[in-house]
Amino acid sequence: MSKQRPVIAVLVGSLSKDSINRKLARALEKLAGQRAEFRFVRMDDLPVYNRDMDSSYPPAYNRLKEDIHSADAVLFVTPENNRSVPSVLKNAIDIASRPWGTNSFAGKPGAVIGASTGAISTALAQQHLRNICVFVDVYMLAQPEAFVRYHDGLIAEDASVTDDSVREFLSKFVDSYLAWVARLSN
Amino acid sequence: MSKQRPVIAVLVGSLSKDSINRKLARALEKLAGQRAEFRFVRMDDLPVYNRDMDSSYPPAYNRLKEDIHSADAVLFVTPENNRSVPSVLKNAIDIASRPWGTNSFAGKPGAVIGASTGAISTALAQQHLRNICVFVDVYMLAQPEAFVRYHDGLIAEDASVTDDSVREFLSKFVDSYLAWVARLSN
Amino acid sequence: MSKQRPVIAVLVGSLSKDSINRKLARALEKLAGQRAEFRFVRMDDLPVYNRDMDSSYPPAYNRLKEDIHSADAVLFVTPENNRSVPSVLKNAIDIASRPWGTNSFAGKPGAVIGASTGAISTALAQQHLRNICVFVDVYMLAQPEAFVRYHDGLIAEDASVTDDSVREFLSKFVDSYLAWVARLSN
Amino acid sequence: MSKQRPVIAVLVGSLSKDSINRKLARALEKLAGQRAEFRFVRMDDLPVYNRDMDSSYPPAYNRLKEDIHSADAVLFVTPENNRSVPSVLKNAIDIASRPWGTNSFAGKPGAVIGASTGAISTALAQQHLRNICVFVDVYMLAQPEAFVRYHDGLIAEDASVTDDSVREFLSKFVDSYLAWVARLSN
Repeated sequence: MSKQRPVIAVLVGSLSKDSINRKLARALEKLAGQRAEFRFVRMDDLPVYNRDMDSSYPPAYNRLKEDIHSADAVLFVTPENNRSVPSVLKNAIDIASRPWGTNSFAGKPGAVIGASTGAISTALAQQHLRNICVFVDVYMLAQPEAFVRYHDGLIAEDASVTDDSVREFLSKFVDSYLAWVARLSN
Repeated sequence: MSKQRPVIAVLVGSLSKDSINRKLARALEKLAGQRAEFRFVRMDDLPVYNRDMDSSYPPAYNRLKEDIHSADAVLFVTPENNRSVPSVLKNAIDIASRPWGTNSFAGKPGAVIGASTGAISTALAQQHLRNICVFVDVYMLAQPEAFVRYHDGLIAEDASVTDDSVREFLSKFVDSYLAWVARLSN
Repeated sequence: MSKQRPVIAVLVGSLSKDSINRKLARALEKLAGQRAEFRFVRMDDLPVYNRDMDSSYPPAYNRLKEDIHSADAVLFVTPENNRSVPSVLKNAIDIASRPWGTNSFAGKPGAVIGASTGAISTALAQQHLRNICVFVDVYMLAQPEAFVRYHDGLIAEDASVTDDSVREFLSKFVDSYLAWVARLSN
Repeated sequence: MSKQRPVIAVLVGSLSKDSINRKLARALEKLAGQRAEFRFVRMDDLPVYNRDMDSSYPPAYNRLKEDIHSADAVLFVTPENNRSVPSVLKNAIDIASRPWGTNSFAGKPGAVIGASTGAISTALAQQHLRNICVFVDVYMLAQPEAFVRYHDGLIAEDASVTDDSVREFLSKFVDSYLAWVARLSN
């Protein structure tokens, strides 16, 4: 039976205080409302992964792993850096997938969405992320793909989306994602 | 005119003390001999990239940028983590390519090689790295692609390669790479 | 309710009479036994896709679309050509996904496996195929990834697998795939 | 010494009579003017590649190989089909790179550009194409990446570009490409 209110581990691929992707994640949380619990996973205090630490993971690594492991699903909300996954997000994935045999992502449903101000959006980062998710055994929502063109004021302080067509698209994305999570939780 | 003895910024995609890719990089250095100067770029003290630091890069970031900027070419020697570029390497690339307008990689010739013990080798990490290199404007050697199957003892303490066919392949790789560097330095 | 015996549209990415991937597909069919019906999709008579034909698809195009549309799931068994999807397979996908609004793949569960004689196997073709499957809305099995190292005699004339560990791996792959198909058919 | 007027083998990734990418290729030819000879490679009569034909390539296959082999450089002008390289273009590449040992692309400089009407443009097709080009040993221009947003009237009947900023960008692209071809022809 699917959970009534799944816990979603949200990984935002930017550490910036002004991250437009964190704003986007907050907007998605608001659109999901009571249907899901968004757990924003902390990633700002994670040293760069080194496999020599596998035998004694630092507390922040274990916290990350537990935040993901205990969630019902994952949601990546991420910009693109150099046509690929931002290092902060790749680092979190490398950490949470190790040590060998303790992959915290295994078998979870997931999805990716990203906001950018540029033309190509975040399509290439999303492609790499999807490649990675195959290996860490996350089942990713296929359609709709979600590339959000951001502009100032698109998302208000209270996380509401000010543009009707964008809000409609994001609502549809959230609906599809939550349906996917429910489908894979049976 | 091409430089007689180019400086190669070597980025090893692992922080492990026992990194087989660092061993591989040392073997390549030995095979290059007097034809090139290998500069092993330090990456173990780089905090995870955050664009909020763009206005005041920490000293370790600037050291990394200078190590790459002042080199004639780059060489990536890297394992694969989760079917993509290891976070330590992606982090170094994100740092050295920023702040906007100061990309330390711009226009340099490059190549990638990787050692692994597994069957698929490092092909998928290399593919992502090549995608990234397009954006950071590094001109990558195409052929020969270099996927090294590593086993204990393949590379001796003095960085010599103990297997004849592997040594021959690596020599050919070094020759091709140095020819590529010379060709693009004209 | 899931179907008792799903129909699997099998797309083999080679037209060669001696295709090792067709042999592999036959071996998978044998391992699936009565649990599934394997429908080998004909692809040797499909002209190269041209969108000018969208208004009047040739009969072979419509046959392909119907073969896929009426199946419960898809299975790609493919070699790698030039580090990507073979043209025969890309052509079939382009045809079956069009004309716009009639994507024959939409919403189906799927998986990919490939045999090769070389070291890197078919990992890069599979990565591209997975990227494509996101767009054509096929939900792909993540783990286990399946890269089969082929050698003469691995698969006998009667489609049985002669190597114990390979047969065990392929059985596990078939089990995982059929479980995935059942899970998404609920 | 570089050739005064290099021959460019142009591969347009669409067979449509109204192909916007063919229009784009014609615009690039016009911008190149007397600096290069654009050879539009015919691809509409190429049966889908089958390695069983390696021992006796049909005349159209050999014509394609010769058109590419005798050129100084290649230029891919292509749309994106299903987030990857169109089948017509993948087919041409598979054909021209075979039979084993007769790769017609080997060592040539190249570039890719694409026009689309949609938001994500042709970035993902270009990424796959670049992956493929590594294997077929084509040295691709890195920057500038070129994703052209097309609208009716952007390119006139006489192949002139009607929008100033687009024309300026395309001129810069042609300049960079021809400089790259010259650089690798030394």
